[in-house]
Amino acid sequence: MTLSMYQASVPVFLRALGNLHHVLKKGEAHAHAKNISPDVLLQTRLIPDMLPLTRQVQIATDMAKNGTARLAGVEPLKFEDTETSFDQLYARIERAVEYIKGFKPEQVDGSEARQVTIKTRNGEQHFEGQAYLLHYLLPNLFFHCTTAYAILRSSGVEIGKSDYMGKF
Amino acid sequence: MTLSMYQASVPVFLRALGNLHHVLKKGEAHAHAKNISPDVLLQTRLIPDMLPLTRQVQIATDMAKNGTARLAGVEPLKFEDTETSFDQLYARIERAVEYIKGFKPEQVDGSEARQVTIKTRNGEQHFEGQAYLLHYLLPNLFFHCTTAYAILRSSGVEIGKSDYMGKF
Repeated sequence: MTLSMYQASVPVFLRALGNLHHVLKKGEAHAHAKNISPDVLLQTRLIPDMLPLTRQVQIATDMAKNGTARLAGVEPLKFEDTETSFDQLYARIERAVEYIKGFKPEQVDGSEARQVTIKTRNGEQHFEGQAYLLHYLLPNLFFHCTTAYAILRSSGVEIGKSDYMGKF
Repeated sequence: MTLSMYQASVPVFLRALGNLHHVLKKGEAHAHAKNISPDVLLQTRLIPDMLPLTRQVQIATDMAKNGTARLAGVEPLKFEDTETSFDQLYARIERAVEYIKGFKPEQVDGSEARQVTIKTRNGEQHFEGQAYLLHYLLPNLFFHCTTAYAILRSSGVEIGKSDYMGKF
């Protein structure tokens, strides 16, 4: 077993999305048990000028699916950001997982020096594949998964660190 | 350039610790400007049953330094958790950075299948090096860096995502 660009990306992304799905499920169950409208939870922000739960999930899935595609040198499939329910967020995660699983290791492996260009608020940003994965995608993905977790936990959902980390 | 266990760990850890240092500096400046006792900020929790800022920084540095050592097959240097000021936290980060920089790539490379055992609240946990890095260390490190960021932001510190991500 040798570390490769595929190994350092796809299994990490899939695990993070699985754990995100798991904490969302606990959030939905909590809303149901406490008679909280799911909308309230989905629109909750950790801090007023941060993004609400729905956007955290949308961005986390985008990091994973766009990241996989760009490492493979493929233009990412675009998802419309129209989810308004837990079920729709689960479907988005599932769709991202299926999309990511559609890439073969040989498409992602060897992408260390592949040129990746992304559009940000501050214009275009250029990366080599390895820096894109390690210094952009991973910190970003875990930022949004952690923030989604913190939104739910701050809303009273009984989750702990092990829900975010997943089973070993 | 080919991805390796060293490349996927040490530069990622050093960058995360550098960005953590940067957001802490902004937090300290905010406390000073607003006449907030630094102690208050250091003891602030995002959610009452989560750990305070000081512990988030201690754990983030531990993930990076312990992770590097264990991947290299070395018993990690233990830091006492005694910091009570921003300066002491900066010193801890600096000490962790120097410690991590003391490892050579050849000590960490090839650790994909190295057996790593850690002690957790639930007993011993066993990993192979690659899973330890990708599925334990990285999600954990970014969890604590994100939480430290969110504690500061929730306390009114003017920081944004780019402070957490660092410069490109």
